[in-house]
Amino acid sequence: MVKRCVFFISDGTGITAETLGHSLLTQFNRDQFSYKTFPYIDTVEKAQQTVKQIKQYAYQAEQRPLIFSTIVNEAVTQELSSLDAFTIDCFSAFLTPLEQELQQPSNHSIGQNRVIAADPRYHQRITAVHFALDFDDGAKTYAYDQADVILIGVSRCGKTPTCLYLALQYGINAANYPLTEEDLDNQRLPGILLSHKDRVFGLTIDAERLAAIRHERRPESRYASIKQCRQEVNEVEALMQEAHVPFINTTRFSIEEIATRVLSMTGIQRQF
Amino acid sequence: MVKRCVFFISDGTGITAETLGHSLLTQFNRDQFSYKTFPYIDTVEKAQQTVKQIKQYAYQAEQRPLIFSTIVNEAVTQELSSLDAFTIDCFSAFLTPLEQELQQPSNHSIGQNRVIAADPRYHQRITAVHFALDFDDGAKTYAYDQADVILIGVSRCGKTPTCLYLALQYGINAANYPLTEEDLDNQRLPGILLSHKDRVFGLTIDAERLAAIRHERRPESRYASIKQCRQEVNEVEALMQEAHVPFINTTRFSIEEIATRVLSMTGIQRQF
Repeated sequence: MVKRCVFFISDGTGITAETLGHSLLTQFNRDQFSYKTFPYIDTVEKAQQTVKQIKQYAYQAEQRPLIFSTIVNEAVTQELSSLDAFTIDCFSAFLTPLEQELQQPSNHSIGQNRVIAADPRYHQRITAVHFALDFDDGAKTYAYDQADVILIGVSRCGKTPTCLYLALQYGINAANYPLTEEDLDNQRLPGILLSHKDRVFGLTIDAERLAAIRHERRPESRYASIKQCRQEVNEVEALMQEAHVPFINTTRFSIEEIATRVLSMTGIQRQF
Repeated sequence: MVKRCVFFISDGTGITAETLGHSLLTQFNRDQFSYKTFPYIDTVEKAQQTVKQIKQYAYQAEQRPLIFSTIVNEAVTQELSSLDAFTIDCFSAFLTPLEQELQQPSNHSIGQNRVIAADPRYHQRITAVHFALDFDDGAKTYAYDQADVILIGVSRCGKTPTCLYLALQYGINAANYPLTEEDLDNQRLPGILLSHKDRVFGLTIDAERLAAIRHERRPESRYASIKQCRQEVNEVEALMQEAHVPFINTTRFSIEEIATRVLSMTGIQRQF
């Protein structure tokens, strides 16, 4: 079956168009679509090239393409309107009502292009990313008092990607500490975690899923065996319950969902 | 001045509502707003609590709040509609036209909640994140043939956060290699980069901005001095030009912009 084409077109990164488009299309069967993003379409010339490319892509398709667009410049929008497509234009739909509500003209309506300024979040994001790297995997623990959250759990339950996502997306200082067999044998949290217990949050995962993930890393190892995974998961969950550490099961969650649930359950304030 | 409240409300992570909302509000003066997200509002009970909280927050404000919402459940939407607010409901605006275009009912209209399934991107994202960590900072180079891109540049020009963003957001294997004074003295790319030159992409940065970033890390050091930064930046740019390595200046870009421009200029395909 020829898939129906979905295009994301933006004069910026395309992230807004992609985010909204994917979010809407999860309400349908997503397998029926193919996707392509055209970012930085900020001149009439680039718009003309894009139109040409879309016509080529869409040539084989049986149905007209879907377009999610976030173009500010009207001349660019004009070029794109020559396409035979179903278009959702996020900006034109909402900017005029917003202008009315705020009783302010938008940059769009005063003909100004997006102002490119140094990202005010840049510094905090970089700092948070390096914090996550420095305090990944429990190797160093000396700055735990500067952590907003310390994620704990068995190896490969999603701690590191979640910490990095929290850093990049929200500027949050997130450390992580893997609970090892030694910690589990002691049947109590390591001292360093006990002394920062208000920042500790647990991740757990179904043993079958954990075994599959570990198997990718070390095939046929004891580390990846279902027996070992099951034992570690059971012991960690018992330990976290015993220590009254809040935790969530990550098995069915995306990294975005794990990260936002950690924020929601801990009440940690996003930095931006 | 009391800032006007902006609320993002979602039955999921809230990321779509935040992304669209922030994107629209960059078209106005953003300093006039304060922001709060309510994620996972998926029951009438939680909606009632949210309404209560929003009324408290908005109590002091002089103007009614703005709400960006991506709620699928109609009973939840109903509760929220009791608020006196300017509401942009991303789903209700676009789902019906999409249903008509696709000639398919959405999960929304057939009364199904969002289907929670294991994220198909999870594995590739985890793999890519660990690739970025393993091949960060030039310490290891043995798997450069598995890299989709190898970012080069001076220390603290944005390589590491960009690699991690490429991994998390797009599942791309991104390594990075810092060009040191030793490399610069040789006036040519290190052999390991020459043998993977088709994957090498450069980041550069204004010396003043670099000095400010380095100063945060090592105040008053030679490393952070404007003279040192200027010299390194000049030499790296000359080296990249000489070697015909494409590069961009990151000074005024967010990490999202750096990452999407790298993709756009190299033509690397996103994994999702």
